[in-house]
Amino acid sequence: MFPDPVYAEHVLAWNFRDFQRFFLDDLFDVLAAHALMLAETGLLGREDLARIARALAAVDREKLRQAPYDGSTEDVFFRVDRELEALAGAAAEKLRAARSRNDLDAALYRMQLRQRLLEAFRDALALAETLLDLAREHRETVYPANTHTQPAQPTTVAHLLLGVSEALLRDLDRFRAAFATVNRSPLGACAITTTGFAIDRRSTMQRLGFDDLQRNSYGAIAGIDYLAEACAAVAVCALTLGQFLQVLLDWSKAENGFLVSGEDWVQISSIMPQKRNPVAFEHARTLASRAFTEAQSVMGCLHNAPFEDTVDREDDLMPLAFLTFGDLRRALAVTRGALADARFDKERMRAMAGRRFVTATELADTLLREEGLSFKAAHELVAVAVRQAGSDDPAAVAASLLAAAPRLLGRPLRMSRQAIEAALDPWHFVLVRNVEGGPSPEAVNAQLDGQSAAARAAGSWLREKTAQLELARNRLHEELRRACA
Amino acid sequence: MFPDPVYAEHVLAWNFRDFQRFFLDDLFDVLAAHALMLAETGLLGREDLARIARALAAVDREKLRQAPYDGSTEDVFFRVDRELEALAGAAAEKLRAARSRNDLDAALYRMQLRQRLLEAFRDALALAETLLDLAREHRETVYPANTHTQPAQPTTVAHLLLGVSEALLRDLDRFRAAFATVNRSPLGACAITTTGFAIDRRSTMQRLGFDDLQRNSYGAIAGIDYLAEACAAVAVCALTLGQFLQVLLDWSKAENGFLVSGEDWVQISSIMPQKRNPVAFEHARTLASRAFTEAQSVMGCLHNAPFEDTVDREDDLMPLAFLTFGDLRRALAVTRGALADARFDKERMRAMAGRRFVTATELADTLLREEGLSFKAAHELVAVAVRQAGSDDPAAVAASLLAAAPRLLGRPLRMSRQAIEAALDPWHFVLVRNVEGGPSPEAVNAQLDGQSAAARAAGSWLREKTAQLELARNRLHEELRRACA
Amino acid sequence: MFPDPVYAEHVLAWNFRDFQRFFLDDLFDVLAAHALMLAETGLLGREDLARIARALAAVDREKLRQAPYDGSTEDVFFRVDRELEALAGAAAEKLRAARSRNDLDAALYRMQLRQRLLEAFRDALALAETLLDLAREHRETVYPANTHTQPAQPTTVAHLLLGVSEALLRDLDRFRAAFATVNRSPLGACAITTTGFAIDRRSTMQRLGFDDLQRNSYGAIAGIDYLAEACAAVAVCALTLGQFLQVLLDWSKAENGFLVSGEDWVQISSIMPQKRNPVAFEHARTLASRAFTEAQSVMGCLHNAPFEDTVDREDDLMPLAFLTFGDLRRALAVTRGALADARFDKERMRAMAGRRFVTATELADTLLREEGLSFKAAHELVAVAVRQAGSDDPAAVAASLLAAAPRLLGRPLRMSRQAIEAALDPWHFVLVRNVEGGPSPEAVNAQLDGQSAAARAAGSWLREKTAQLELARNRLHEELRRACA
Amino acid sequence: MFPDPVYAEHVLAWNFRDFQRFFLDDLFDVLAAHALMLAETGLLGREDLARIARALAAVDREKLRQAPYDGSTEDVFFRVDRELEALAGAAAEKLRAARSRNDLDAALYRMQLRQRLLEAFRDALALAETLLDLAREHRETVYPANTHTQPAQPTTVAHLLLGVSEALLRDLDRFRAAFATVNRSPLGACAITTTGFAIDRRSTMQRLGFDDLQRNSYGAIAGIDYLAEACAAVAVCALTLGQFLQVLLDWSKAENGFLVSGEDWVQISSIMPQKRNPVAFEHARTLASRAFTEAQSVMGCLHNAPFEDTVDREDDLMPLAFLTFGDLRRALAVTRGALADARFDKERMRAMAGRRFVTATELADTLLREEGLSFKAAHELVAVAVRQAGSDDPAAVAASLLAAAPRLLGRPLRMSRQAIEAALDPWHFVLVRNVEGGPSPEAVNAQLDGQSAAARAAGSWLREKTAQLELARNRLHEELRRACA
Repeated sequence: MFPDPVYAEHVLAWNFRDFQRFFLDDLFDVLAAHALMLAETGLLGREDLARIARALAAVDREKLRQAPYDGSTEDVFFRVDRELEALAGAAAEKLRAARSRNDLDAALYRMQLRQRLLEAFRDALALAETLLDLAREHRETVYPANTHTQPAQPTTVAHLLLGVSEALLRDLDRFRAAFATVNRSPLGACAITTTGFAIDRRSTMQRLGFDDLQRNSYGAIAGIDYLAEACAAVAVCALTLGQFLQVLLDWSKAENGFLVSGEDWVQISSIMPQKRNPVAFEHARTLASRAFTEAQSVMGCLHNAPFEDTVDREDDLMPLAFLTFGDLRRALAVTRGALADARFDKERMRAMAGRRFVTATELADTLLREEGLSFKAAHELVAVAVRQAGSDDPAAVAASLLAAAPRLLGRPLRMSRQAIEAALDPWHFVLVRNVEGGPSPEAVNAQLDGQSAAARAAGSWLREKTAQLELARNRLHEELRRACA
Repeated sequence: MFPDPVYAEHVLAWNFRDFQRFFLDDLFDVLAAHALMLAETGLLGREDLARIARALAAVDREKLRQAPYDGSTEDVFFRVDRELEALAGAAAEKLRAARSRNDLDAALYRMQLRQRLLEAFRDALALAETLLDLAREHRETVYPANTHTQPAQPTTVAHLLLGVSEALLRDLDRFRAAFATVNRSPLGACAITTTGFAIDRRSTMQRLGFDDLQRNSYGAIAGIDYLAEACAAVAVCALTLGQFLQVLLDWSKAENGFLVSGEDWVQISSIMPQKRNPVAFEHARTLASRAFTEAQSVMGCLHNAPFEDTVDREDDLMPLAFLTFGDLRRALAVTRGALADARFDKERMRAMAGRRFVTATELADTLLREEGLSFKAAHELVAVAVRQAGSDDPAAVAASLLAAAPRLLGRPLRMSRQAIEAALDPWHFVLVRNVEGGPSPEAVNAQLDGQSAAARAAGSWLREKTAQLELARNRLHEELRRACA
Repeated sequence: MFPDPVYAEHVLAWNFRDFQRFFLDDLFDVLAAHALMLAETGLLGREDLARIARALAAVDREKLRQAPYDGSTEDVFFRVDRELEALAGAAAEKLRAARSRNDLDAALYRMQLRQRLLEAFRDALALAETLLDLAREHRETVYPANTHTQPAQPTTVAHLLLGVSEALLRDLDRFRAAFATVNRSPLGACAITTTGFAIDRRSTMQRLGFDDLQRNSYGAIAGIDYLAEACAAVAVCALTLGQFLQVLLDWSKAENGFLVSGEDWVQISSIMPQKRNPVAFEHARTLASRAFTEAQSVMGCLHNAPFEDTVDREDDLMPLAFLTFGDLRRALAVTRGALADARFDKERMRAMAGRRFVTATELADTLLREEGLSFKAAHELVAVAVRQAGSDDPAAVAASLLAAAPRLLGRPLRMSRQAIEAALDPWHFVLVRNVEGGPSPEAVNAQLDGQSAAARAAGSWLREKTAQLELARNRLHEELRRACA
Repeated sequence: MFPDPVYAEHVLAWNFRDFQRFFLDDLFDVLAAHALMLAETGLLGREDLARIARALAAVDREKLRQAPYDGSTEDVFFRVDRELEALAGAAAEKLRAARSRNDLDAALYRMQLRQRLLEAFRDALALAETLLDLAREHRETVYPANTHTQPAQPTTVAHLLLGVSEALLRDLDRFRAAFATVNRSPLGACAITTTGFAIDRRSTMQRLGFDDLQRNSYGAIAGIDYLAEACAAVAVCALTLGQFLQVLLDWSKAENGFLVSGEDWVQISSIMPQKRNPVAFEHARTLASRAFTEAQSVMGCLHNAPFEDTVDREDDLMPLAFLTFGDLRRALAVTRGALADARFDKERMRAMAGRRFVTATELADTLLREEGLSFKAAHELVAVAVRQAGSDDPAAVAASLLAAAPRLLGRPLRMSRQAIEAALDPWHFVLVRNVEGGPSPEAVNAQLDGQSAAARAAGSWLREKTAQLELARNRLHEELRRACA
C-alpha cells in the first residue's frame, strides 16, 4: 500500500514537515485567492464560496501544523483538501477546478522566496547603513591600506567602508531585480498548460500581492531562472561580505590591533588564559561561506534537469534555498552587530599610517611636482631613500632622501626637510587625494551623500514592497471574511 | 635574479601570453585616454602629448603580440612602458603619473568583460529570436508534454518554446544589468586611493565608452561583484539552456522521434552501421555544463580573498572568466544552429498527442461542466475509464467511459460518444486553453507579440551599446591622430 | 554582557542546539576516556577518578539534551564542565588538564563522521547487493542499450547493473579510505601544541575506538583533509547514483516502458486522472543532487581558510557535512527500495532489443567473418540494407541485405536469409559477446562471482569496524562503571 | 553537407585541436597494441600486422599534429584511419575489428589522466620533501601560533610544517588510490558491449601499462568515477595547499615579518616606490583556488548525465580536467620554489614567541603542578596577572602574578620570580610539549623519521609506476618494430 515505509520515511515525511514549517499559511491564502477568483469569474457560486470561506477559517491550522506524517495522504496539499471537503463538502471539490498542485507549489515557492528576498534586502541595507554611519564617524581615521597583503598607502576607514557599502548597495539592486523576477504569479498554469475554464490569472495575481504574471504557463512550472537568480544574488552578496570580513579579521589581529571587538562578542579559551577571540567575525565568515556555497549548491541541483515539471526544483530543494538565505542573513546580522559594538583603535591606526613607508607614493609625486623630476627619477630616488633610511620614521626617510639626492640627481634637493616630512604625512596623503571617489574628506562627503540617498531610496522601496504584500494579505483576509457571510 | 625560472614558467609567462591575447589593444586605448586626459587637465604639455601619441602609434604592436616572455620585464605593462620610453623619452615617463597597474588592469578586465557580455547578449538574443521564429511556425504543432517524465497533457511546440524564450529574454535583462555594473570606469583609482594629481576621472571614462564611474576608488580595485554578477548571469543562462537541451535530446530519442537533426549535424558510429547520433545537442549540453560550472568556479576563486588588491581577482583568473563566456557562446550557437536545421516531425508529435490518455484532464473537466459532476466524481470516472479502456485509442476510452458511468454515477452519461471523443481530441485540448500564457493560438499570438517586442527592444539596446563603444573608440583614435600632429 | 543577543541568536544558540543533537553522547565518552587516561598516567588520583566517573553518570543527560540556550555558558562544553564541577567539585577541575575544546571538538567531529561513513558504506553496500541480486535475476533480460541517447546495441539488464555495482564497490573503497583518514584520534593535541603534562595519546585513542593517531598535533586541529576526503567520497558516490537514476527514469518513461514502479512508490496527479508518476526515482535524483552539491559546498567552505584553528571547519560547518551524508543515504535508500519493488517488463525490453537495427553491428561483423568482407564493405552493406529496409523487422532487414549485396559487392551473399536473421537476433548478439566484462551469461557469471566476493568482503569489513566501535564503547562504559566504585 | 560550419567551428575544430595536443601519440600506441593483440589472438595475419606496423610508423605524425581541421573527417580518429588505409589498404581495415571510438577514447583519457596523476604526485611529493627539509632546519625556530587568528601558543616552524607535510603525504595516498582506479584498461569494451570477436582484453591491457581491467564493459564506457575520483584528489590537495598558503602570506605580512620572500620572487609596484610584494604566494593561492574550483567544475559537468555513453564525459570535458591538474601543479611548483628561496626571520619569530602572553597556558599548568592550584584557580590567576601586567614582557607578567597571588589565593606563591619567568619562556614551552605529535625536538624528530620514511616509500612507488609505463611503451614500440619486418 502506498506509501512504502522507506519512501514515507525518506521523502514524504520530510516534505510534509517542510511544508508545515514553510508553506502552510501561504497555502491557505492561495486557496482563498483561488476561490475568490473562481467566484468572480462565475465559476463558483456565492454560496459555495461562502462555504469554502468558512471552511478555510474553520480548519484547525495549528493542529495541522503539528500533525505527524501518517501516510494517509501524499502530502499536506491533499490533507488540506480532505479537511476542506469534510467541512465544506461538494463546494470544496469545486475549488479543485482550474488549479493543480504544480501551480500552487510554484506560487508558494515564489511567495516564500520573495519574503526572503525582502528580508535579505533589509539586512543588507541595515549593514550598509551601519557602514555609512561608521564612515561618517571615521572620515579622519587614517590607516595603512594593503595591496598584495603589504602596507601600501594611507587611506581612511571611511574610504574603505564606502567601498564596501557601495557594493552592498549594488547587492540591493540585485535583490531588487531578483524580486521582480520572483514576484510573478504562476497561478493558472495548472499542471502546465493552463485550463479550459475561463479563469482570470490577474485576479489571483493581484490578490496575492504579485507584481506581474509569470506569463507563459509552461515556464511557470518548468522555469527555474527565478530561483537561480535569487540564489545568485545571495552568492554575490556573500562573496563581498566574506571579502570584507577578511579585512575585519585582519584588523582584529593582535599584530595590527586596529579593531577591538566588544566584550559581548568575544569568546575565551578553554585552555589559554590570555585569549580573547574575535570569533564573531569568524563565525560570520563561515556563515557567509555557507550562504555562498549553498547558493551554488541550489543552482547545482537545477543543473541538467529537463525544462519540464520535475521534482528537482520542488519540495526537496526549497529548504536548501531557504537555508542559503537564512545563512546570509545570519552572516549579515552578526557582522553588523559585532562591527557596531567594536572599537576602532584610531590612535593605533593613525600611528601605523605613518610607518612602513606607505606614504612614499606621495613623496615621489611631490618630488615630481616640486623638483621637476621625471617619474622614474623621483621613484628611484624615493626607493633608494626608503632602502637606506634604516628606519621608517619620517625624519629618517627625509634625511635619507636629502642624503641620496646629490648622488642620484647630481644636485641637492630644493625642498626642505620639513617639506619632505610634510609630504610623508599620512593625513596630507589623504587630503590631497581629492579626486572623485578618493579618500579626502570632500570626496568622502560626496560619496556619503550619494550613497545615503541611495540607501534612503532602497529603504523606501523596501517599505513599499512590504506594505504591498501586507496590504494584499489584509485585503484578501478581509474579502474572505466578507465572503463567509 | 628576478624572475626565478620556476616563477617565470608557471606564472609570469602565462600572464604575459594571456595579456598578449586578451588585453593588448585595450591597453593602448587606455594609455591614449590617460594621455589625453592628462593633457586636458594640464598635467601634460601639448608637445609631450604629441610625442606620446606618436609613440603609441609607432610601437610595433604585432611584434609585441608575438613576443615570447623573456623575463626582462615583469609583464606586458612594463614592456610597453619600456617601448614608449624608447620612442618618446621623458614624455613617456610623464604618462606614468596618476595611474597604476592596478587601475589599468581593472579597466582592461572591465573592457573585456563588457565586450563578452554584449556577445553573450547577442547570442542569447539570436537563440531567442530563433525560438520565436520556430514558435510562429509551430503554433499548431501539438505534442504530449511531460510532467514527472510522463506524458501529461497535449500542448504546442510554440507554447514550450515561448516558455524558453521568455526565460532567455530574462537572461538578457540579467546580462544588461551586469553590463551596467561592469561598464564603469575604475581609472583614476591608481593603486587604490586615487592620486594627488588633479585628474578628471570622467574624462577617461567617457573616452573609453564607460557609462559611469566605479566611484569609490578602493572598491574600484578591491571590489569583485562586477565580475561575480557577470558570471552569475552566465550561470543562470546556462542552466536554462541546459534544461532546454534535455528536452531537445529527449525529443530526438528514437522512441519519441519528435525532432530529427539535420544531416549536417549528425555524427556516425565507428562501429555501429545503423547509428545517426544527434550529438550536436549533446555537445551543446556539455558546453552549457562547462559554462555553468566554470562560472561557479570563477566565483569560487573569489571566495575568502580579502577586500583588498590581491591577485586572486586578476591575471590568473580572467582567462577562466573568459572561458565561461566562450563556452556559453559555443553552447548557444550550437543549440541555435542545430535547432534551426532540425525538422520537427509534426505528424509523429500530433499522433502521440492523442495517445497515452494525455487529454484525460480535459475529459474530466468537460464532464464536470457538461454533466454537472463534481471534481472528484468526474476525475474518478475518467480514471476508471482510462484504466479499463484496454487501449489508449480515443474510441476505446469513450466506450470505456460510457460503460463505466452507470455503475459509478448511477446513471448513464448524457454526452454522446462523439462528444466524448471530441473532448479527448488534443487540438481541442489546446484550443480551449485560452487563458493568458496558455497554448491556444490566441494566447500564443499574444505571447509572440509581447516577446517579439521585447526582443526588438533588446536588439535596439545591443545596437546602441555596440555603437557607443565603437564610437568612443573611433573618436579616441581620431583624437590621438590629431594629437600626433 | 556576553553574549550579545544578536550573537546568541544567530550563532551560539544554533551551535548549542547542534551540539545537543549531534555530539552530546560522544562528549561524555571522550571525557570518560580522558579521565581514565589521566588516571592511568598518574595525573589523576583514583579517588578523583571515581568522583568524576560518578559525576559523568549522574549528569541528567536528557535534561541537558533538551535545555534551551540561555547564554550562561558559551556552549554545551562549558555547560557540562559546570555540571561536573557541581557534582564532583575539585576533581572535575582536574579533568580540564591536558585537554582543550579544540581537540575535544576535533574528536567529536571525527567520531560523528566515522559513524556516517559506516552508515553510507552500509547503504551503498545494500544497494550494490540489491543490484547483484537483480543482475542474477536478469542475466537473460535483453534490452537495447543507448549510446549518445540512441538505441545502440542489445545487452542485458545484468550487464548494465554490474557496471553500476562495480562503481558502487569502488565507492566502498573510497568510503573505507576516508574512514582510515577520519578514524584517527586528535586527542592530546589540546589547543594545538599538545601539553606539558605527560599524557598518553594512544590510551584515549584506543578507548574511543580510533584506529590510529592523527599524529601531528598542529594538523590535528588545523587539518581539514579528513573532512574534505569524506565529503569527496560522498560526491563521487552521488554522481554515479545520479547517473544510474537517469537510466532508471528513462526506462520508466511511457515511451520505453521498461521499468514499472511498484504501486507503493507511485504518486498521482492532483489534476490529471491518468497519471502514475515514478517520482520515487525523481526524488532520489534530487537527493543525490543535494548530496553531491552539498558535499561540494562543505569543501567550498574550507577554501581559503588558513591552516590554523578557525571556526570555518567547526560547529557552523558540521551540520552541513552531516546533511550531505544524510541526503546521500536518503537517495541510496529510496533508489534501492523503489528499484527492489519495481518490475522490469522483460517482454517489452526483449521486444525492443530486436528493433531499431540495434543488432546491426553483429550483422556486419558476421558478414566480415562469414563472407570474408572487409570491415568497410561489411559496414557499408549493412548501412545500406538498414536504410533501405523500410522497417526494422529482422525479416525486412535480411531481405534488404540480400537485395543490396549483388549491387554493392558484385555478387550475391552466400549466407542464407535464416542465417542473416539469426545474426540479427539480440540474444545471439549477447551470447557471442563472451569477452571478459561482456554481457554473455558466462562473462556475467564471472563478474557476479567477483563482485559478490567483493561485496562479502565489504560486509565483513563493515561488521568488523562496527564491532570495533561498539566494543570500545562497551569497554569504556564498563571501565567507567568500575571506576565509580 | 556535414559538418555544418557552426558545428565545425564550435565543436569539431576544438575537439580536433585538443586531440592533436593531448592524445595523438597515445592513439598510435593504442592502435599498435590493438594490432598486436589481434595478431596474437589469430584475428589478424602476420602479413597484415606487418603492413599495419609499417603504416603506423610511416604516418607523418608531426604533419598530423599541425593539420588544421578541414571537416573532411569527423575527427582525428577517422583521419588516422584514412591515413592508415592509404598506407596499408585492406590490412588497415582489419584493424577496425573489435574496437570502437568509445573504448579507444576511454583508454586515451585514462592514459592521460594516469600521467597527470603521476605528475601531480611528483610535485606534491617534492613539496612534502621541501617541507621536511625545512622542518629539519627549523626544529628550534620558535614562533607564536595562532588560534582564532590570535597569537595562542609558541610552537616551532618544524611543528607546523610537519602538520602540512603529513596532509600532503595523505594526498599522495589519495593520488595513488586514484591512480589504481584510473589505470585500468577499458579496451575491448568496443561501443559498450564488447565484441563477438574472441579478443583478449588482458593483452592490450598489459601492452599499454595498465594495472588491471576496467572489467565491466558497460562501465568502461559509461562510468565516470575514475575521473571524479582523480579530480576529487586534486580538490582535496588544493584545499590543504590553499590553507598553507594563507599562513605563508600571513607570515609574509609586514606586521609579522616572519617570512621574507627571495628577491627572485618579489614583484614591485608601478606606483609605490617602497613596495616589495610577496606575490608568488598570492599567485600560488589563486592557482590553488583555480585547481580546486576547476576540479569541482569537472565533477559538476558529470552531474545528471546518464550512465550511458554520452559526450558529457568526453572530448569537451577532458581539457578542463587537464586544466585542473595543470593548475594544481603550477600552484605546487610555485609554492615550493618560493618557499625554498624564502628566508625565515628566526630572530623575529623567536622574539614574537615571547610576546602577547602566548606562554600563559604553560604558566597556568606550572602553577597547577608546582603550587598545587586547581585548574580554575591557576587559570584565573594567570588571566588576572596578564590583564594587570601592563606589558607583555615576561618580567612584568611575573611581577603581576606575584602581586596578584596573595589577593586571589590568600597566600603568596612559593615559586620564585625566576621560576615564573622560566615558565613563560617560549622554548621551555616547546621543550615540555614532548607528547607524541608535539613540537618538542624529540617529538619532532620522531615525526620527521616517520614522514621521511613515508616520503621515501612514495618516491619508490612513483619510480616504479613511472618505470612500468616507460617499460611497457618501450616494449610496445620494440614489438611494433619487430612486427614491421
